[in-house]
Formats: sequence, C-alpha cells, structure tokens
Amino acid sequence: MSTSSVQAGLPLSTIPIFTTVQAYREWRQNAFLDQKTVGFVPTMGALHDGHLALVKRSLAANDLTVVSIFVNPAQFAPHEDLATYPRTLPNDLALLADLKHLPSPSSPPRTPSALFLPSVQEMYPSGISQEVGRQSGTFVEVKGYGEQMEGRSRPTFFRGVATVVTKLFNIIQPTNAYFGQKDIQQGLLLRRLVTDLHMAHPAPERLHIVPTARDPASGLALSSRNAYLSEAERRTAPALYAALQAAARAWDAGESKARCVRGAVDVLEAAARAGAAEGVEVKVDYVEMNDPGTFEVLGEEARREEAPVVLSAAVWVGRTRLIDNIVLGDTRGMIMG
Amino acid sequence: MSTSSVQAGLPLSTIPIFTTVQAYREWRQNAFLDQKTVGFVPTMGALHDGHLALVKRSLAANDLTVVSIFVNPAQFAPHEDLATYPRTLPNDLALLADLKHLPSPSSPPRTPSALFLPSVQEMYPSGISQEVGRQSGTFVEVKGYGEQMEGRSRPTFFRGVATVVTKLFNIIQPTNAYFGQKDIQQGLLLRRLVTDLHMAHPAPERLHIVPTARDPASGLALSSRNAYLSEAERRTAPALYAALQAAARAWDAGESKARCVRGAVDVLEAAARAGAAEGVEVKVDYVEMNDPGTFEVLGEEARREEAPVVLSAAVWVGRTRLIDNIVLGDTRGMIMG
Repeated sequence: MSTSSVQAGLPLSTIPIFTTVQAYREWRQNAFLDQKTVGFVPTMGALHDGHLALVKRSLAANDLTVVSIFVNPAQFAPHEDLATYPRTLPNDLALLADLKHLPSPSSPPRTPSALFLPSVQEMYPSGISQEVGRQSGTFVEVKGYGEQMEGRSRPTFFRGVATVVTKLFNIIQPTNAYFGQKDIQQGLLLRRLVTDLHMAHPAPERLHIVPTARDPASGLALSSRNAYLSEAERRTAPALYAALQAAARAWDAGESKARCVRGAVDVLEAAARAGAAEGVEVKVDYVEMNDPGTFEVLGEEARREEAPVVLSAAVWVGRTRLIDNIVLGDTRGMIMG
Repeated sequence: MSTSSVQAGLPLSTIPIFTTVQAYREWRQNAFLDQKTVGFVPTMGALHDGHLALVKRSLAANDLTVVSIFVNPAQFAPHEDLATYPRTLPNDLALLADLKHLPSPSSPPRTPSALFLPSVQEMYPSGISQEVGRQSGTFVEVKGYGEQMEGRSRPTFFRGVATVVTKLFNIIQPTNAYFGQKDIQQGLLLRRLVTDLHMAHPAPERLHIVPTARDPASGLALSSRNAYLSEAERRTAPALYAALQAAARAWDAGESKARCVRGAVDVLEAAARAGAAEGVEVKVDYVEMNDPGTFEVLGEEARREEAPVVLSAAVWVGRTRLIDNIVLGDTRGMIMG
C-alpha cells in the first residue's frame, strides 16, 4: 500500500486517499480476501475530538479503519448552511495522521488505513438537487422514524442521511460502523435501516453509537457547527447541556415528563436573559422526550421506571443551531459502554 | 451440502431451501471464500418458461445459481390481486429440479444451487401494509423513473419493487442478476438503483435483461397472470403482441409516434370487437413510446433513427391486466443478446 497520496487538488497525506468508488473497491476486495475486519467512521469533515473518539474506537476494534469525508447536499434544506458548512481538509488530514492505537506492546501501531473523499458527482450519479421536488434518482426513507425530533424541525434531513449512508455502506462495506450519540436519532434510525434492508455490511449489531464527546470544562457537546459561534455565544452555548442535566435530575427525582421539560426550558430561558445582556439571542427549537425504539413522543404525564428514554433538545444560539441529548434509564445495547 | 430439504410445511425438494436470511448468509459466505460466482433470479413463483429461461442463463454463466420465490405485498396496491396471485410451489420446485446445464462434456451438470423462500415477516422486519400511508420502516424510491408507463397505472408499484429488490440484493449478494424484458421498466429502473446506491452485488453491468419468452404459436408473452385467462380470453390476448408488432412495422416504415400508437390501438380495437362476440371485454390501459434512459414520453411527432425507443402497452382482457413491450432500434448493452 502506498504511504503517501498525491492527487490533483488534494493536500499531501500520509493516509491513502480514495476519491472514486472503483479505486476503493479494489482495496476493499483485498481486505475481504485477507479476511481483515474494516471499521468505518463516516463524517462531513471539520473534524473535532468527537470524530477522533469514533476513529479511536474503530482502530481499537478493527484490523483496518476507513474514514469518509463528504458534505452531503441531500441532508441540507435549500435555506440551510450547506455553502458555509466548515471545510477544513488539511487540518482533518493532520488530525487523522496523528492517531495511533497499539493493539499490544509487540504489535505495530494501527493508524487510519484509508480516507474516502468522493465528489458530489461520484456519490450522486443521477445528480442531486437540495429541493426534494426537483430530485431524481434513488432515495431511501425510513418511514415513521424520521418525522419526530430533528425530523420535525428538518423535514427532509433524515431522507438525505438515509440515502447517503446507504450509498456509503454499499461502497465501504464495513464490518463495524461508528456514529456519535450527539446525533442519536440518526444512529437509531440507521440501525432500523440496516435491519430493514438486510444489509450484510454492517450487520445491525455492528452499527455502534458512541457517547458524545464534550468540552471538559463546560460540558458543551463537540460539534463542527460550534465553529460558527462568536466568543459571547460560546459562553452561552453550554446552557443546552445544563438544561438537559436539569431535566435529567428532575426525571431521576420522579417528576413527570411535562415538569422535566419545563425544568430544561427554565434553564434555557435564564440563559437567554443572560445572553441578551451580551447581545446573544437564544431561541429554543424543542425540548422533547421520546421512545428510543419508535421515537414516539412521550405523553405529558409519562413516567418510565425501567425503559430508556431519549431526552433531546435543539436551540438556536445566534444564527447557529445546536443539538444535544442524553439517555435516561438503561442504555444497555443502545449506546457503547 | 444437503441434497434434500425437509422443513415444516415445505414440499420435498432436491434443491436446498433457505427460509431465513441468516441461514442463507452462511451458505453465501462459503461461496465468497471459494470465490464462486453466484447468479440470481428473483421471482414471485408461479414459474413458467420465461422464468426458466432466466435460470438457464444464470446456470450457463455462474458457478452457482440462486432462485428466490417471494410474493411481495409492497408492490400490490390494496385493490390489486395479491390474495389471488397464483401460488404453485410444488410445481415450481419440480420445474427447477428438472433444469440442468452442462458447462462442458466432462463437467458435472449445473443445477439450481439454492432456493430462497422467505416469509413476509423475514423480509419486512418492521411489518408491511399495502397502504402506503400506513407503512413504517425503510423504503427505496427511484424518483423520476417510476411515474411513467407501468408507474402511471400503478403509482406505488415501483416503490415496492425497488424496496424488495434492494433487500434481496443485500441478502443474496449476487455476482449476476437476471430479469425478464417483459418488465423492461423494472429492469432499467433497477439498473439505475444499483448505480445510484453503489451496490457491489450486483454491479450495474451485471444486472441482465433477458428477452421476453413467448408462446411459439401466438407470440403471447409468458406471464404468471396468463393463468387467470379463460379459454376465450386466451384466444384474444395475443392481440397485445400483434398490436406492438403493427406499431413497430409503422415505425420501421418511417411513421411518427402518433401514427404508430394509432396503429397499435387499431389492432386492439379490432380484437375488442371480435372478443365482444365471445363475451370477452378488452380495454386498452396505455400504448406508449418512451426513452429507455429517462422513461420520458416521446413527443407525438417524434422520430428517432438511431437511439432505441421502448414501445410498451398494457391491456385489460376481462379482469386480467397484461403488459408487453418491444424495443425499437439499437438494443445493444440494454437487452441480452
């Protein structure tokens, strides 16, 4: 395998870069014949410690690890931030090149094996419009699982996610795939997809959801979109996680869903008042509790002593939309330990 | 490999039968490790010589051949013939068991290697309703390719086909797959799907469309639904192919699309008058000419000297809906020779 990759328009990289499906397939075929396991971390780039935590999990559990960077037009609505979404490829490559895992003291260290970096044309051979009504070609939809929570605020988001991840799984053919808990609905919806479509790579139980990486001091969930925040907004943003924690404490104290959600909104409203003094506008999009199996919204008076519940929220901080969630109750089999 | 298969409720079969994805996957995994090619013929059962022609193609070109029988609820609208669709499993098994291909005089004959016979629950783990509005779980749609011709008369038909074939391809993981030209729109749409979703098994060029098998005397396209026809209807039905041939002759003589379609409809109207005398009702659903790449309807005055054109029709003969098509012009790369 080549140790460097120099391609037209691409930065120098110690990790082999594949830009076409065909070139990747040859590499993957050899891995199959060698009976190597392949871990996969799909990303939209602008890598941060949350992504790196996923890659580390993959390095530890697989012979080979593939990372993809693809900003997927189909999951952005026309009014959303496709054009301004942060693109930091040289930095992404440097971060990935620094990752190492030692399977044992005597083994050579494992590093990311390949980066898949396709063009929009390569991923969407029939072309792609951000306007659903003007799209043609093949799309995948997980009915009944994409209309709540994030899907309610972003109606065609999960259709775009389901479509691009189906393509990526068919291309990469991973033994294991890793997703962050920050996008928990995405992870659970993709498990449904992999089950329903009977995908062989990955098998449903090989699609892993890894706990959200957070800023150690404030608890703010790491996100590529944090790069949009001004300094004052950055000081306000941790209120999102604080709000979820307040609701979780209320839940643990035996309160109803309605009171837990009220507790979270109180924290966010206090942050909004404090932020206003600094010129920061905070707007709550939603705070909700859902069943992790069906995403069904819990009733206002709901209490579940045993079954897990997803507590999630989205807020606008200035012009940046941030999401976060925590799982209440028993998360076994749902989130990686 | 076992040479007989006795399973609860299944007829005796010399061909191994798999009813679960898991059991099939183990068999397929061995074929991968042995580097055997696997041909695949998906069917809804009620096998006739048209299906057997597909299986023969597969036997001739692959080390192993898998046939599936699954009557897919998702491609029948609630008012359509799901309940009465012919189910003839013992006969299907006998027909398949009789097929042999001799790769060379000294080689052992090739016979079908496996039959995949899943339950509805196995194929649709999230359940399945024939009413689109009540469905939940994962569905696949080929936008812009499923609304014309058959898709216009049967609006959710191709969504059901695309979904079940995506599942079947993910399960069977065929090297080559074989479809009949009688359902030409299905074959071409599935090539689009395999291309767009970047499926590895089969690759787009490994999805083969095999010329329609016909009754030698009348030219009637073989179809499982021919079993619905009364004796008098059976005498009327060949008018469908005769109508397509009349239109093709007009096309070859340099006529416009409008006149070719008119020529086909004339033949069908004459058949309707003759049939009426015997109590057979004939109703034209459509006669149309479409671009085989985009399925776009040709303009009324269209003439294409070089590019291929799909001439297709659907008629009701009594309570049975029959379809047929022929390709005008150069079919290279589109239909198997």
